[in-house]
Amino acid sequence: MAVNDRIILGIDPGTIVMGYGLVHIVNNHPKMLAMGVIKLDKYDDHAIRLKLIFERVIGLIDEYHPDELAIEAPFFGKNVQSMLKLGRAQGVAIAAALSRSIPMTEYSPKKIKMSITGNGNASKEQVAAMLQQLLGIKKEQEYLDATDALGAALCHFYQSKGKTSGAKSYSGWKAFLADNPKRKG
Amino acid sequence: MAVNDRIILGIDPGTIVMGYGLVHIVNNHPKMLAMGVIKLDKYDDHAIRLKLIFERVIGLIDEYHPDELAIEAPFFGKNVQSMLKLGRAQGVAIAAALSRSIPMTEYSPKKIKMSITGNGNASKEQVAAMLQQLLGIKKEQEYLDATDALGAALCHFYQSKGKTSGAKSYSGWKAFLADNPKRKG
Repeated sequence: MAVNDRIILGIDPGTIVMGYGLVHIVNNHPKMLAMGVIKLDKYDDHAIRLKLIFERVIGLIDEYHPDELAIEAPFFGKNVQSMLKLGRAQGVAIAAALSRSIPMTEYSPKKIKMSITGNGNASKEQVAAMLQQLLGIKKEQEYLDATDALGAALCHFYQSKGKTSGAKSYSGWKAFLADNPKRKG
Repeated sequence: MAVNDRIILGIDPGTIVMGYGLVHIVNNHPKMLAMGVIKLDKYDDHAIRLKLIFERVIGLIDEYHPDELAIEAPFFGKNVQSMLKLGRAQGVAIAAALSRSIPMTEYSPKKIKMSITGNGNASKEQVAAMLQQLLGIKKEQEYLDATDALGAALCHFYQSKGKTSGAKSYSGWKAFLADNPKRKG
């Protein structure tokens, strides 16, 4: 791999569906490497769901060897019990990364939307459309459930890029437009 | 080890202090094997706290080789954000057990208090005094912070005992009194 090569694993850990997305950065250009969802609603037992999340995240790490983990981490919810369950799902995903010594960064949904589209209140469809262009995803691929996870990974790339190199700092939509004026709209 | 030998790891996963207690069952008699706390309040970073919990639980598992994990799992809290953090701490501890294929059972604080003292609303001091007698803990040992964790481990022993063997089912205080009439009061 080149010096600038790195792989970022994005996770959107829910208790019903867990989304994941892997972004491969080559020479500062992000490409989608893999994405998908783990459907958990068929299992009633919360402990089994946690086990599945843990095993699947470990599986993704061992298959793709990501350098970093970015998770979408909302800090709001309907009630305390659902937040506890969400926290557990997040904790299990984080622990899977910890067990492989992968550094983790968390981003709020607003931060991710802002980073990708330039609008912190963008819809899921808007974020998905933007990711499609930024990551070269084919239109026929169904990935709406993995949008937030891919968004987290790409957001982390933009954020860390600004911090860790002297290279021009992208911040999503605006930077994309500046570099790709013809793709607007 | 004899057929009836098993070790239960109890965890009380908090975001400020994480308590743990290991109970060794020999011929259906529980003994305290180890107990302690991990103090997390000196670390501001939540991710570092999660990492510490994960590493310490893995460390305990690799040192004592427990057969089962019992965690104290309260389902109430002040606000959604503190519940999310608590959930993460729990998730990380659960994942540590999952990563070593150790089955996990969770118990509410009320269930643990009921199982140990016969009173679901017992104070921490009452539970601690009862555990001291039941597990043969010396009086000079300070372990109030690890009480809930030890209680979870012992509660699991009482619960699983009733389910998995034809042996007499203990249920804490009452059973203890019946077997040890002189120790009352």
